Amino acid sequence: MRIVIAPDSFKGSLTALEAAQAIERGVKKAVQGVKTVIVPVADGGEGTMESLVAATQGRMVELTVKGPLQDPVQAAYGILGDEETCVIEMARASGICLIDSTKLNPMDATTYGTGQLIKKALDDGLRKFILAIGGSATNDGGIGMLQALGMKLLDSDNQQVGYGGGELSGVIQINDQHFDSRIAKCEFLIATDVQNPLVGKDGASHVFGPQKGATPEMVEVLDNNLLHWADLVEQKTGIRLHEKPGAGAAGGIGGAFQAFFPSKTKRGIDIVIEYSKLVEHLAGADCVFTGEGQIDFQTASGKTPMGVAEAAKKKGIPVFALTGSIGQGIEVLYQHGITSVYSIVNAPMTLQEAMTRGAELLEQTAEQVIRTYMIGLQK
Amino acid sequence: MRIVIAPDSFKGSLTALEAAQAIERGVKKAVQGVKTVIVPVADGGEGTMESLVAATQGRMVELTVKGPLQDPVQAAYGILGDEETCVIEMARASGICLIDSTKLNPMDATTYGTGQLIKKALDDGLRKFILAIGGSATNDGGIGMLQALGMKLLDSDNQQVGYGGGELSGVIQINDQHFDSRIAKCEFLIATDVQNPLVGKDGASHVFGPQKGATPEMVEVLDNNLLHWADLVEQKTGIRLHEKPGAGAAGGIGGAFQAFFPSKTKRGIDIVIEYSKLVEHLAGADCVFTGEGQIDFQTASGKTPMGVAEAAKKKGIPVFALTGSIGQGIEVLYQHGITSVYSIVNAPMTLQEAMTRGAELLEQTAEQVIRTYMIGLQK
Repeated sequence: MRIVIAPDSFKGSLTALEAAQAIERGVKKAVQGVKTVIVPVADGGEGTMESLVAATQGRMVELTVKGPLQDPVQAAYGILGDEETCVIEMARASGICLIDSTKLNPMDATTYGTGQLIKKALDDGLRKFILAIGGSATNDGGIGMLQALGMKLLDSDNQQVGYGGGELSGVIQINDQHFDSRIAKCEFLIATDVQNPLVGKDGASHVFGPQKGATPEMVEVLDNNLLHWADLVEQKTGIRLHEKPGAGAAGGIGGAFQAFFPSKTKRGIDIVIEYSKLVEHLAGADCVFTGEGQIDFQTASGKTPMGVAEAAKKKGIPVFALTGSIGQGIEVLYQHGITSVYSIVNAPMTLQEAMTRGAELLEQTAEQVIRTYMIGLQK
Repeated sequence: MRIVIAPDSFKGSLTALEAAQAIERGVKKAVQGVKTVIVPVADGGEGTMESLVAATQGRMVELTVKGPLQDPVQAAYGILGDEETCVIEMARASGICLIDSTKLNPMDATTYGTGQLIKKALDDGLRKFILAIGGSATNDGGIGMLQALGMKLLDSDNQQVGYGGGELSGVIQINDQHFDSRIAKCEFLIATDVQNPLVGKDGASHVFGPQKGATPEMVEVLDNNLLHWADLVEQKTGIRLHEKPGAGAAGGIGGAFQAFFPSKTKRGIDIVIEYSKLVEHLAGADCVFTGEGQIDFQTASGKTPMGVAEAAKKKGIPVFALTGSIGQGIEVLYQHGITSVYSIVNAPMTLQEAMTRGAELLEQTAEQVIRTYMIGLQK
């Protein structure tokens, strides 16, 4: 018997790898001699880097970069098991989780640290990049990243502008003379599910600004600033980011990649599934476990369990989804290949208790599910 | 596909019948054309009467009797589908659940109402009885029941003593001249798991008195009173209840049955399984659902899911157990025939929420479990 174990993280409780290991323990209790393949999966959000590194037996390179508010933060990039693909999680350098919620301010927050991660990886000889750009604290159009990579964004005094979305209005000239020339020889694969344009009511500032701490007044300023920036970029490159789908991802860094980097964009879950070689691992598997902290009808929109299930469905392999919390409408998941969904919560308890006992509960539930499946198989 | 659905009640949330119906809804969602057999089961405790009546398509007869503190209570006895077996749940007439916890007092509480139920059933022509004696509020040695059936328990003034365990010391003579003569022609099957003797440290007063409201002083008085009563009974009948196993069940009513009724005692779960014809229903079943509010290692000691599982195990039928709360040590249940155990709690929540949403949660979980089993079957 061969079982593929491919969960996302259980946020606040277990990383994807820890979740996979807990499921594996449960499965091994129930089935003597079972062969398991652990493929921690993420959907392009938080944990994507760790999951890909773990799934490919890669490694991490740590370094200190400028955080979103210029404070030093300990960040990292990953090198996949192929030793040539670099995976960068923007949130680790410029993420909302790095800032106390009272200090969130997209006028000031910069993507500079993300640029520093890219630069270090370039220095280390890497030329293939996966950029997971979820969870950013920024709305700077990606200028911080560009600055870190040598782009000069000059104001009327011919000086570099400062950091953050508030500075965009001061830029009157983009000088790429010192922009890192190695970038043109790279491939950048941008992992994002966001299709929003750069400016306007559906743009980065209006849609994502408020959750990054923008007041209604700031939203207007930030949107105007991105409009000004888009005009400049169009002038410089001929690429019109204003209405371009995905240009508004992660405070506009999506647009910066589109304009200045040899880049392609893909759904996070698709990239993770491809690079983790999930499809190859599924060959000959008897069943699959996946999971995530919360599962409901929205899971059908590109979340990890859905991506895993769709891949397994093509091969006719049953998929059991484990979760902390089952929400509304899980029935829609059946048609996408999910066989059944179980909460790991084994009694009335608080969220805190469920999170603290996550590994134990996941192990117990996985054991019960595989026992149920096995007894059917044996009939 | 044929599925037997045999849960106990989920106390505070669902009767055994309601639980079975919820499981049935879940199963029918998952499996088109499935045949289900609903066998609500109880272990001899609360709900035994309703379960047996429902399982045999019997009926209930309601009447008002004297409650444990002489207040009138609406009680009932059941007639099984065979139209000749009467099932009486002592708790419905003399139960702890009928009294506000601040008013519990085993010195006063009487089994008189239980005797009234028997008398009414005798009047209605019934001669076969199942007595489920769990959950009593009484410690009167069963004298209330005997009084209701015509036994004279006389004091030194040749007057009937009053009600409750406190009155036992006043009895100096047992006069059975008017004791209901029909009883000798009946069969009484006593459903209890209690093996305690009537008196002493392991007797009714010491072991069960405190939970019925006895203070330490009362326990001593009640135990002395039962000793006096046991002496009288021995004098009258030659039967020595003092150390007799089961004589201490339900405040000593167990002993009254042993001394004055043609009676046999069996484990509650065994009686329920026999009379609900569970074994017959299991023939040809593909799987069984059982369940109870709480499942843990103690479930192995004669609880409903265990009884169901043991019966199913003999036929090699998988048993899925659903519960509100999984406790410690469920692994011991596997060897008794339980395939897997699932909590119906589908997210962190309070006990109150789980109870309120019991039916919906049970339905959802049953659906997931049968989907998992089916996919194994189909492989």
